[in-house]
Amino acid sequence: MQLVLRMNGLVAVLVGAIMLIPAAADATHARPFLLSAFLAITLGALVAVAARRPDYRSFRARHAFPMTTFAWLTAGTLAALPLHLAGLDIHDAFFEAMSGLTTTGSTVMTGLDRTAPGLLIWRAMLQWIGGIGIIVTGIAVLPMLRVGGMQLFRTESSDTADKELGSAARFAGATLWVYAALTLACALTYEIGGMAPFDAVLHAMTTVSTGGFSTYDASLGHFDDRFIMGTATVFMLSGSIPFVWYLRVWNKGAWRSEQVAIYLASLAAIILGMAAWLALAGLAEPLDALLRAAFNVVSVVTTTGFATEDYTAWGAGPVVVFLIVTVFGGCTGSTSGGLKAMRLILTAKAIFADLRRTLSPSAVVPIRYEGRAVGDATLISVVAFCTLFLITFAVVAGLLGLLGLDLLTAVSGAATALANVGPGVGDVIGPSGNFAPLPAAAKWVLAFAMLLGRLEILTALILLTPGFWRR
Amino acid sequence: MQLVLRMNGLVAVLVGAIMLIPAAADATHARPFLLSAFLAITLGALVAVAARRPDYRSFRARHAFPMTTFAWLTAGTLAALPLHLAGLDIHDAFFEAMSGLTTTGSTVMTGLDRTAPGLLIWRAMLQWIGGIGIIVTGIAVLPMLRVGGMQLFRTESSDTADKELGSAARFAGATLWVYAALTLACALTYEIGGMAPFDAVLHAMTTVSTGGFSTYDASLGHFDDRFIMGTATVFMLSGSIPFVWYLRVWNKGAWRSEQVAIYLASLAAIILGMAAWLALAGLAEPLDALLRAAFNVVSVVTTTGFATEDYTAWGAGPVVVFLIVTVFGGCTGSTSGGLKAMRLILTAKAIFADLRRTLSPSAVVPIRYEGRAVGDATLISVVAFCTLFLITFAVVAGLLGLLGLDLLTAVSGAATALANVGPGVGDVIGPSGNFAPLPAAAKWVLAFAMLLGRLEILTALILLTPGFWRR
Repeated sequence: MQLVLRMNGLVAVLVGAIMLIPAAADATHARPFLLSAFLAITLGALVAVAARRPDYRSFRARHAFPMTTFAWLTAGTLAALPLHLAGLDIHDAFFEAMSGLTTTGSTVMTGLDRTAPGLLIWRAMLQWIGGIGIIVTGIAVLPMLRVGGMQLFRTESSDTADKELGSAARFAGATLWVYAALTLACALTYEIGGMAPFDAVLHAMTTVSTGGFSTYDASLGHFDDRFIMGTATVFMLSGSIPFVWYLRVWNKGAWRSEQVAIYLASLAAIILGMAAWLALAGLAEPLDALLRAAFNVVSVVTTTGFATEDYTAWGAGPVVVFLIVTVFGGCTGSTSGGLKAMRLILTAKAIFADLRRTLSPSAVVPIRYEGRAVGDATLISVVAFCTLFLITFAVVAGLLGLLGLDLLTAVSGAATALANVGPGVGDVIGPSGNFAPLPAAAKWVLAFAMLLGRLEILTALILLTPGFWRR
Repeated sequence: MQLVLRMNGLVAVLVGAIMLIPAAADATHARPFLLSAFLAITLGALVAVAARRPDYRSFRARHAFPMTTFAWLTAGTLAALPLHLAGLDIHDAFFEAMSGLTTTGSTVMTGLDRTAPGLLIWRAMLQWIGGIGIIVTGIAVLPMLRVGGMQLFRTESSDTADKELGSAARFAGATLWVYAALTLACALTYEIGGMAPFDAVLHAMTTVSTGGFSTYDASLGHFDDRFIMGTATVFMLSGSIPFVWYLRVWNKGAWRSEQVAIYLASLAAIILGMAAWLALAGLAEPLDALLRAAFNVVSVVTTTGFATEDYTAWGAGPVVVFLIVTVFGGCTGSTSGGLKAMRLILTAKAIFADLRRTLSPSAVVPIRYEGRAVGDATLISVVAFCTLFLITFAVVAGLLGLLGLDLLTAVSGAATALANVGPGVGDVIGPSGNFAPLPAAAKWVLAFAMLLGRLEILTALILLTPGFWRR
């Protein structure tokens, strides 16, 4: 308990400190940030000092559940403060902050083109910090918690960390360098493509973090530029690859990764199919079709959610495909949300193994992943996670329906929030829409769904089980 | 191969023989039936005779996959013949026959109120025979094939069969008696409720088989009678309970069944919630709300698909709930389609066990079902089946989208076909709609989805794997 409090205090101080950046960058609109920073740092410091002697020896893996969940909740709540002080009502501020921090990218703000630079910086920073936050959580915390098959990733990343970098701290530091380098490269390429430095940096931060906030209501469509679309496609992809993989390639030149290979191959297949549809339907020239299909599919599957056009106008087929791939997500250990390639691959393998066992009941069908044998318990963990994800999706969609949203908005809203994508499907929350018109209660449901999705559901959900609080 | 051919020949003769019933009952419209019967019996007999010396010793469990799949396909194709000869085009005839035989109950026919009695009898018979067909397939064939956790059911039913009835044949006979008795009871109660004998018998056949074909375009709404709605609710429920359970109660007075108990309790919870919504939204008086909620929820969850009103007018909340429960289905070993209670229960248990293992990684969490321990392999089988079901659903919805159906029709159409429910959601195929306006290709996709759903997907899908045909 002391530890959870202290951790939250430190998170508050950190969030408060970060608020000084937009305050410094945009002095004319600095008040909400300075006030929020003062509040966050004071409160955080008080809590951290009050809980300053936690007994580290009593720390158990289970304590990481409330620690992680409350840390994200505290960060999101404090992050909403400057948005609220700047004029958003409390529902919108919490929604926007959660959408930012979880790198979802759904927005309730309109008139972004005329919004104070400080606020735009803050939104982009939330996504950038949320992105690195989830990589660290994914590498350091979730494997320890054995959430949804993440124990697999534990061996993978800790091996890498141990052998290649010597210590977990150096490993996290190296990840941060990769993340920063990718962001810098993205910003420079955007500038080469003609973006103003301000836009280039902010969009780079929301591209590599697969967040998807833009500084324009029309999102990347504002620029209407093929080079910028291509750049975004490449760097959204870069954010959806396991960051461990970059380190492994850098240190050992070891390119091979089952997850990355299957992920990229599947993505290519979906893009080609979509481009063929666009070309055959006479909606675009072949090359144009390929670029537009690649950009939009990558935007959704990496759970970024940038838009350049309303792909719901492409016809019923693409809409159904977009709705389905919304829950896919990128790779584990990346900034992507969703089910993630590792789980989809293992689920497919479980189904094939089951088919083979159906054919020859006595056959022993070992399942391997990234060259390692996968135990039955881990496999159940993974497949059960997929089912839990879909059940949570159904529950959230049901809640949204009960709150009066139409079916399409409820279903695609639940999917887009839980998978941290951004836009949904339909007139209201589609790629050319906005979440502002939704009722306040729906915004809270969606904001909590984003957090739930970001924490791989179980991390937060387990706090609601009586079994957790026993002992 | 010889065996598969002979089996199909016998099925054809059987289907042909059954066609004589509507021919006899409605002499003025007998021609299509007599012609079809002649064709089916002649062809079937020729095939059966040509393949008359199958080597039974070479029979393996794996041969049951093509045998079952082709038997259902042959029966469906032949069943479409009289419908085609009576005037339906070939797409509509195949769709209607498959919808009947799989007890789905989606229809492309309009003007039922003025349709020849022979055709109405044939449609009801298809559902009734399809219902008993799936119980027998579910009891005798699927457990042998270990499809989607059906091996669990194997022990259960074969135990029952062995101990209580002495032999599998007597067991199937006993099931048929229960089925016939329930149908008779249902028909009599419908008559007491004021139905004409013709309507009462035909509706009883489509109620107990959880099929849902009616003799009126307005379905059961035609009667607009509370007693008839209540009767239908009770007997749809009776068809969604494992038929083994009736025999166990009859023979040993053993009422207890985990599956039946959890199934009924969940159903009650959904009905109460829906009734509360109706009452609170001011759409109905409390008692009226309860009856209408019970009838419509039971109609969808048992995968019957009778309609008395357009529940999509109840608001967004109920629509989302109806869409979700469409895939639930009743119990295993009943005439219901869908995922089925057994799988939902075991999936929930797998998730809870995983949560507990997440909390205490060293804990051994045994999973029990109906008082028996469930092995890891079976559990993976069950959870993988649920995922495969949802993947197939997504693929079918995607195909329908590519064929130009709007999102709501594509998604709910895929769900309703795969789960053998009947109506979908939306203006076209909703409870007050009809499948006739769909493009021909969509009808074929839906018809095959019905068959796939009816055969627990794997039975048919496994024929497409190269592994099956090897050796």
